[in-house]
Amino acid sequence: MAENPVRFGIIGCADIAKKVARAIDLAPNAVLHAISSRSIEKAMNFAATNGLPEAVNIYDSYDQVLDDPCVDAVYIPLPTSLHVHWAVLAARKKKHLLLEKPTALDVAELDRILEACESNGVQFMDGSMWLHHPRTAKMKELLCNFGPLDFIHSQSTTSATSEFLESNIRAQPDLDSLGALGDLAWYCIGAILWAKDYQLPTTVTALPVVIRNSAGVILSCTASLHWDQPDRTVATIHCSFLSHSSMDLAISASKGSLHVKDFIIPFQEHSASFDFTLGAKFADLHIGWNVKPKELHTASQLPQEALMVQELARLVDGIRESKSHPESKWPEISRKTQLVVDAVKKSIDFGYIPVNL
Amino acid sequence: MAENPVRFGIIGCADIAKKVARAIDLAPNAVLHAISSRSIEKAMNFAATNGLPEAVNIYDSYDQVLDDPCVDAVYIPLPTSLHVHWAVLAARKKKHLLLEKPTALDVAELDRILEACESNGVQFMDGSMWLHHPRTAKMKELLCNFGPLDFIHSQSTTSATSEFLESNIRAQPDLDSLGALGDLAWYCIGAILWAKDYQLPTTVTALPVVIRNSAGVILSCTASLHWDQPDRTVATIHCSFLSHSSMDLAISASKGSLHVKDFIIPFQEHSASFDFTLGAKFADLHIGWNVKPKELHTASQLPQEALMVQELARLVDGIRESKSHPESKWPEISRKTQLVVDAVKKSIDFGYIPVNL
Repeated sequence: MAENPVRFGIIGCADIAKKVARAIDLAPNAVLHAISSRSIEKAMNFAATNGLPEAVNIYDSYDQVLDDPCVDAVYIPLPTSLHVHWAVLAARKKKHLLLEKPTALDVAELDRILEACESNGVQFMDGSMWLHHPRTAKMKELLCNFGPLDFIHSQSTTSATSEFLESNIRAQPDLDSLGALGDLAWYCIGAILWAKDYQLPTTVTALPVVIRNSAGVILSCTASLHWDQPDRTVATIHCSFLSHSSMDLAISASKGSLHVKDFIIPFQEHSASFDFTLGAKFADLHIGWNVKPKELHTASQLPQEALMVQELARLVDGIRESKSHPESKWPEISRKTQLVVDAVKKSIDFGYIPVNL
Repeated sequence: MAENPVRFGIIGCADIAKKVARAIDLAPNAVLHAISSRSIEKAMNFAATNGLPEAVNIYDSYDQVLDDPCVDAVYIPLPTSLHVHWAVLAARKKKHLLLEKPTALDVAELDRILEACESNGVQFMDGSMWLHHPRTAKMKELLCNFGPLDFIHSQSTTSATSEFLESNIRAQPDLDSLGALGDLAWYCIGAILWAKDYQLPTTVTALPVVIRNSAGVILSCTASLHWDQPDRTVATIHCSFLSHSSMDLAISASKGSLHVKDFIIPFQEHSASFDFTLGAKFADLHIGWNVKPKELHTASQLPQEALMVQELARLVDGIRESKSHPESKWPEISRKTQLVVDAVKKSIDFGYIPVNL
């Protein structure tokens, strides 16, 4: 444990908060200081079932976390429609922000959050854990040798129960109106932007194959992204609550290709793999290939969510101790991802039109 | 060697003919009887460099192959624009047909070929070798447990030299005007139809990202296919002469997913693999999965192209010896594949409109 760990408060006891509470515990430079729920029973139950130390404060309102002067940073796993209110309030109270994805219902809301963060000098980061896995850095290193990217496909699917599809937070129009687009495609879009060094696509077009629940929330959608220059790249994303679990990222470029099947949540916690091919050619007579894909394993001492917390805490500590500026990379990544989410949404809403960015 | 092997003639000494000449040699029920080229030097050189037995007849015109009464079946690897002429002529001369893909420039041409085959009682089969690999049957067996298919992505890419892109047969408008769509997407479309048990899609839409060479031939394109019922399935294809070699097929369904990275030409000749996941769920706290993909290897005594020749020869032998009817499955598969190729072409030609089938 660091001498002066960054103290986290959690606003809302959603399921995902269990994973992040554990991550805060595992991160060497962070400590959980407070949790909150609008129901004290729910908060106490959360503390008990997750074995939180007695030192953790248990509050029955979110405001208490924001008013606690000991809290340096807050993690907000609330339904997306509540993000703008609580995130802006948290920033005004000088709390650094770890905000669950999707960051907001649209980029206008996200801009209000980011402006609040900037004017209050607090760090912003969204909850895209996979970006912090060492495998991700290793893949990026390899991609640098691939030449111009030709095609990227990414999909995130999961088979939800019919109860989930009609009543879960992520399928309710007043809570998470983006549905699978916000919950799952966020990752696919993020992965494609990551592969393209965060260059925004020229055009985003949704395919006319959207499936919605009875309340109109997106349960499944598909879209294409393309870049006109400097390299012509095409990408497709697919997200669905109606399919078997998949978390695919496949990248083809002029000199190599890369495949990973668990890019969002690795199959195992301490080791993750991907495979790639460089310089593939067909053998004489086209009866085989000169190379087979190579599998590369990356070990991780800490799970990716703990690495995420550790990175945020490192930045917060820099701001707190050395008066350094917040790192602009993380809000920029979130904003570009949200912009593309918005473009897919707009394309769907306006009859699958191409949306230029 | 069977007692009465089916005797093949090859019309045109294209590069791919070397692979098929070897396959005819390997197939236990087939024998190479004649080869032909419009240049006798080219034909003699083909015979010498491929170590063909002296018994193989070498002709300097395609007509000589068709007029040779000993030839039972012909393999036609000519440029696509020449298929309709030579395939119809071959059928009229009662030669069974192994026709290289794409089968024709459009389905109207293919129908002329298929009508000639039907009225002359000869077997038709296109050169999609991968359909004959035992791995393909094994994948199909597994797919039966997957439930409704949600999403399929298939791509076939290869990095061609700039010389190829401007002057190869497959990039010349008067020889193979379908370019990468005919040469590469044929496989992707075939694989998707195969996965969907040859149910034609409701709608085919090309994406506005086509790249052409100076003569207007397609070097790269992307399209989406979707089915409205009984199951809602979405598929995407991508083909390109401008990218690293890839031959991907990824299928997600309600209960399982499957990935193969070399579905057209296996990495190795005598063994091929794919991987699949059935019943995947996330571990508690979403810190891993309950299962990892399983890799399944399928051995093959003969290369897939020899299995293709063997299957055609088996059908020809049945027709020859037992007066059985030609097998309708193979022309039906080709025709449906060609219909979807045509739909992608139409979508591109008319400004990326959705084309209903």
